This record gives sequence, structure tokens and C-alpha cells, in this order.
Amino acid sequence: MLAKSYACLKSWDSGPAPIDEIIAQTTFRFRMAYSQRFPFQKIAEDPTTSARRGILNLPHGQVQTPAFMPVGTQGTVKGLTIDQIEATGADIILGNTYHLSLRPGSELIAELGGLHGFMGWDRPILTDSGGFQIFSLGDMTKVSEQGATFKSHLDGSTVHLRPEDSVRIQQELGSDIAMVLDHVVALPAGVDQVRDAMERSLRWAQRCQDSRSRSQQAMFGIVQGGLDPGLRQQSAEGLQRIGFDGYAIGGLSVGEEPAEMYRMLEVVCPVLPTDQPRYLMGVGRPIDLVEGVARGVDMFDCVMPTRNGRNALAFTADGPLRMRNQCHARDESPIEADCPCVACRHSRAYIRHLFQADEMLGPTLLSIHNLTFYQRLMARARQAIERGDYGSFLLDQRRRLMDANAGQEPV
Amino acid sequence: MLAKSYACLKSWDSGPAPIDEIIAQTTFRFRMAYSQRFPFQKIAEDPTTSARRGILNLPHGQVQTPAFMPVGTQGTVKGLTIDQIEATGADIILGNTYHLSLRPGSELIAELGGLHGFMGWDRPILTDSGGFQIFSLGDMTKVSEQGATFKSHLDGSTVHLRPEDSVRIQQELGSDIAMVLDHVVALPAGVDQVRDAMERSLRWAQRCQDSRSRSQQAMFGIVQGGLDPGLRQQSAEGLQRIGFDGYAIGGLSVGEEPAEMYRMLEVVCPVLPTDQPRYLMGVGRPIDLVEGVARGVDMFDCVMPTRNGRNALAFTADGPLRMRNQCHARDESPIEADCPCVACRHSRAYIRHLFQADEMLGPTLLSIHNLTFYQRLMARARQAIERGDYGSFLLDQRRRLMDANAGQEPV
Repeated sequence: MLAKSYACLKSWDSGPAPIDEIIAQTTFRFRMAYSQRFPFQKIAEDPTTSARRGILNLPHGQVQTPAFMPVGTQGTVKGLTIDQIEATGADIILGNTYHLSLRPGSELIAELGGLHGFMGWDRPILTDSGGFQIFSLGDMTKVSEQGATFKSHLDGSTVHLRPEDSVRIQQELGSDIAMVLDHVVALPAGVDQVRDAMERSLRWAQRCQDSRSRSQQAMFGIVQGGLDPGLRQQSAEGLQRIGFDGYAIGGLSVGEEPAEMYRMLEVVCPVLPTDQPRYLMGVGRPIDLVEGVARGVDMFDCVMPTRNGRNALAFTADGPLRMRNQCHARDESPIEADCPCVACRHSRAYIRHLFQADEMLGPTLLSIHNLTFYQRLMARARQAIERGDYGSFLLDQRRRLMDANAGQEPV
Repeated sequence: MLAKSYACLKSWDSGPAPIDEIIAQTTFRFRMAYSQRFPFQKIAEDPTTSARRGILNLPHGQVQTPAFMPVGTQGTVKGLTIDQIEATGADIILGNTYHLSLRPGSELIAELGGLHGFMGWDRPILTDSGGFQIFSLGDMTKVSEQGATFKSHLDGSTVHLRPEDSVRIQQELGSDIAMVLDHVVALPAGVDQVRDAMERSLRWAQRCQDSRSRSQQAMFGIVQGGLDPGLRQQSAEGLQRIGFDGYAIGGLSVGEEPAEMYRMLEVVCPVLPTDQPRYLMGVGRPIDLVEGVARGVDMFDCVMPTRNGRNALAFTADGPLRMRNQCHARDESPIEADCPCVACRHSRAYIRHLFQADEMLGPTLLSIHNLTFYQRLMARARQAIERGDYGSFLLDQRRRLMDANAGQEPV
């Protein structure tokens, strides 16, 4: 499998060392040192699925896995105070390197105590690398072997982001987990384009690993390779030769069908280390989390609970509710009767009124509810794994969340 | 004074009974009954100013006076959860009859437990009567003896609001304190226009009193009369003949200079009952509250702390700060070092970043801070009165808040 992929190395755009040479330079010291430094304790494994229950130990505390990470792009989980984020049950949140480096700038954040001090969150933080923006900003981005060049979405100025820049910025942000800079392509894409991006991602991963200097920060590699099992496997193996503290699965939920994403998890998870955390990036709907856990994923992040919350969509255990709908106008019941969040102290009628009246409390309350829903879903998943009963949990969730596709909409 | 004003009664637009006839019909039973039902305990009076320290007893609890009431126009203090409103120190909040009656409708709110149940606030609520919208919606309003006719700001439909409607709606809302429907005019205005509106307000006040049927709801009269001491006095006396549980001073802060407003307080407060609460409506800047208390006012409400907060203006004991300003970009200090609010757990640099990045947490945090600032100001005023030292407090506040005029701006 590897040999077949290596054959294409000659076509790389700027003639770097072939990947097997790069890999040969790696001494494996990182993998050993770092996996000890940020131990991932496995508490339980489900007997009938690949679900795992673990604890990830990070400089700012422990993360109970499977875990969902709320997204705090610009140094704030949109609309929530720190107390409110904590109350949802989140152990760890995500910050965005690209956005924070443009505004207010990573040097400023470093001055003000890193991202933890700046935003006032003293638990674990994971920062992405900027790789996803190479994909999401599309036309405003150019990729070369050296790195990515963005046109700033703020003022149109040119921004260079090399792997070394991404690591430096993430070190200035002081996150608990830094991600390698990766090259994400939109799907569907031709195999050459996907392979090219995957191989560049491997070379960039090595450069990220080589440029690290902050000991109190884990670094995760990112598996790329689109929907091609061979490329995915090659990526996973290449990253492990470099050695990281955990492994993310990137480049999914970018246009493909859920079934294709699940299939890729079945390809990738089995070739990742069993004793290190696995993180499925940017995913997803409640059902995607449940399916991902079944295939061995430990960590997730997604803007869906907050973005959909701002757009009046409330997640429930029986599928989503559109809170602007007339049917809620006189409904005295809360969104979910057993939910402990502040939104569920109110009636559906009140929540609907807030959206009808364009009151900012509506988006705030639904963001809180949806994040609480995601955290409760993960808590139930963890309990099911501890009971050795994740298979039943999975079947039950598939049935209940059948209609949850709607959750993907009004983003 | 009264005789002079009565001379004009003949010119009233739809020939109702002259005001002295109306007053003669009043048996004074209401005044006695209601003031006992909602007792106002005076705890202290300042020896050198007219400041009073009291406790107002209402169906949903006590209000420590002098008190500031956050404005919750549409059934929500904009951007704040109920917990967050409570944490600012507010005993009582205000709801708007006009807005709530249009959306979601007072019958719906009544069905859902009244405004308390609907919004989830179980402490006292005061509802305004819709009178201020006669002024603020200006061109969209027509006033006749019967009542006001609005063009709905939502859909342009015609809305009739007679005094009896206002009382009925407020009874459906179930507030602790209902306000009489009054006719508010913009200042400056000709004396005839002001007198006409004041006298109509008296007739409407009588109709409001006559149409009450909810025992667990106090009703306040509203003194009108523009900047004319004689008209103000006549209004105050006329309202007392009808008899209310408290008296508001309306039609101020509608275009006149602060000094003119203070002068009117000096005219009106001395002719109001000493054993009943006094409420200065829609006022105002921190210094206006302090000056109002000195003249004998017990209650205030204003959108300024929340509206200015949403526009990046933070109140402090030494005047307001514009949080978008560059000078805050690297400032590690909180807005106010001794403030216990959640916003003051963050640096000014972080708050500025939230506004620069257009993050909704910025408006939320500054609304919380500003409301906390107003409540702390009132708490300090109460302590000063208890110490018998309000005169020094007033002088100190005048000096500190000298620059606070800026606070009136970006509303």
C-alpha cells in the first residue's frame, strides 16, 4: 500500500525530500516522550463496537472521552460566558489559529496570559492549525509547498501561514493541544489532488513536529486522504512514523455523504494507535458523534450546536425542533423536560417569542441548550461504554435521531 | 393654582365631566386600602437632603429603595438570563405593555402564568402603561379623549389603547405594579398642549383606577405637566385625590436639560405623599439617579445601561469608557477592579476584542456590567442614606460623574 503511493512522489510540486527520507530522519523520540507526557488512560472498551472510554490528561486538566469540544473561534464560544460554557459540561473547548492570529493577534494574546488568560477559561483548550481555512476560504487561499497564503477576510491583506507559523502561533496561544497544519481539499476531488494534499500534509506535519519548542503542549497529527482508503492508510502510517500525541481525522464532513465518512472512520481508526486519542475534526450532527464513537473516535468539535442554536434550531433526544414554528406558540413545556440547562427552565412558547421578537437571549439560550444536549449525549455515550452496552445505545440513538438530518440545515 | 387651571376645562376635546366633578366622585377608599396593601416602610431619611431609604412590599417580594429597575421591554432584559439579572442585584424589573400586547399578546402571557411565569422571573415586576409610546412612536400615534390609537410598529395595523385596555393588559400580564395610561408630550411644547395632555392624563388616571379588578397589583399614578410648576402641582394633587399606591413623575427626560428635570423634581416631590413611593420614569444617567434620590425619588428605570452596553460603552464610578477605543487594546485591567460582575473577570483588552470581532458576548457582558454598576450605585446611595450622609455622597458623585454626560450618547 505504501509502496504504491510513494511512486507518485516524483510529481510533487517543489521537489522536497521523498517522504521515506523524511520519515527516516524521525527518531521516534517525540512519540514516546509526548505520549507519556499527556497520558491517555483507557477506562473501558465496548465489547461489541470499537467505542472506547478514556481520560486524556492535559496541562489544564482532564478530558473525559468520548468528548465534544464547543467551538470558540474568536476567543469566545459565541454568546456564552465562561460560567455558562462550564455549566454545559464541557471539559475542553476549541480556538481558531487563523482567526485569532488576525485579530487580536497571537502576540497580544500571549502578552495577556495566552488564550486561557485572555478569554478566562482555565480548562483545556485545543487550537486548530488554520488548515481548515485553506478549504473554507477557498478562493482567498493559495497553497504552495512552503505554506498557505490567505487574503485576510478582515481587510484583504496577504497572510502567510507556513507550518512553522502555525506552530509558533499555537504556542503563543498556549493551547493544551496544537494541531499540525494540514492541506484540506473539498470533496469530491480527483485522486491526484487528494493525494497531493495528503502528501503535502505529511511533509507539513513533519515540519510542525520539528518546529515545536513548548513542552506543555500536546500536538496531534491529522490524517488526510479524502475518501481513498489507500491514501488514508498511508497518511495514518506516515503520521505515526513522525509520532504525535494524538491523531485527528481531517478532511471529512466537507461535502461527502455521512455513510462515506463512516466508512473512512472504519478504514482509519484501526490503523491508529490504540493507546492514543483520536479526534474527528469538524463533525457533526448528534448521530455522527454516536456513529463516530462506535468506530473508535474519542473527540469531536463542531459549530453546529451554536450556529444552529442562533438560527432557532433546538436539538432534542428525539430530533431537532425549529423554535420559530407556530406549533410552539402556546407550548408550556420546555425544550427537553429532563435537561438541566437554563433554557429548559423556560417554556417553548417563551423561547419562540424571543426568536420572533429578535431578542438576543433566544440565540444565547438555544446555544446553551444545544451545547448541553451535545455534552449530555457524550455523557450518555460514556456511561454506555462503561456498562459495556454501547451497541444498544447506538441502535437506540439511530432510531431516535432518524430525523436529525434536519439538524444539518439552517447553518 | 387649581382654580386657574380648571378654567380651561371647557376647551377639552370631547366634553367629559370637569375634573373637580371627577375628583368629587372619588371616595378615597382606594388610597387607604391600597397603601395598606402594599406598604412602603421608610427606614431612614437623610438629614441634609430629601433622600429616603425604604422598603416597598409587593406581591412577589420586597424592593429596597432607592431602586433601579432594569428594562425588559419584550419579556427579556436584553441579552441576560434570569440568573444574570438576579446577579446584578436587581429586586424589580420593568415590562412594556405596548410591546408585549402586540407580541406575543397579553392573553397568551396570561395563559402561560403571567409575565412572571412567561419569562421566569419570580420577583417584582412593574409594567408601564403604553403612555410613553404615545410620545416615542410620535407620528404613528393619535390621541383622543377615548384613548390612543397606534399604528403597530410591527405590521402597521391599527391598535387602540384606552386607559381601560391598558389596565386590562397589565392585569393579564400580572405585574406587581401597574401604571396608569398617561399622555406624554415631547418637550419643549406649548403650555396649552402640555396642560391639555396633563388634564387628559388625570381623566385617564381616574378611568384606570375605576377599571381595576386585580387585588394583588399596585397601581401608580403619573404626574404630568411638562416644565410648568403649576401644572405639575395640579397633576400631583389631582392624582392624590384619586388615590394611588405610589406616584410616578413622567414626561421628563424627553428633550429638556437635566437642570430643568431636577427643578421639576423639586416642585413635584414635596407635594407627593411622604409615605408612598415615588418613581421617576425613564431616567437616566448615573448622575440623574443620584440627583433624583437627593430630591426624594425612590425608583428609577432606564434603557441606558443595557442600550449603551450593547454599544460598547461601560459605566464606571469615574465616568464611562468607550470599549472600542484603541487605548484598551493591551489593557489587562478589568473595567472596574472592585466590581463583582462576570464582565470584570475579564480584561478591558478582551472586552474590546469582543466588540472589534462583533461577538455577541461583548454586548452581553457590558449589559451585565452596566446593570451591576447601576445596582451598586443604588446600593451605595442606600448605605449613604442609612448613615445620614447622603449630602457628602451626592457631592462626591457630582465630582466623579462630571464626565458622565458622555453616557447619554450612543443610545
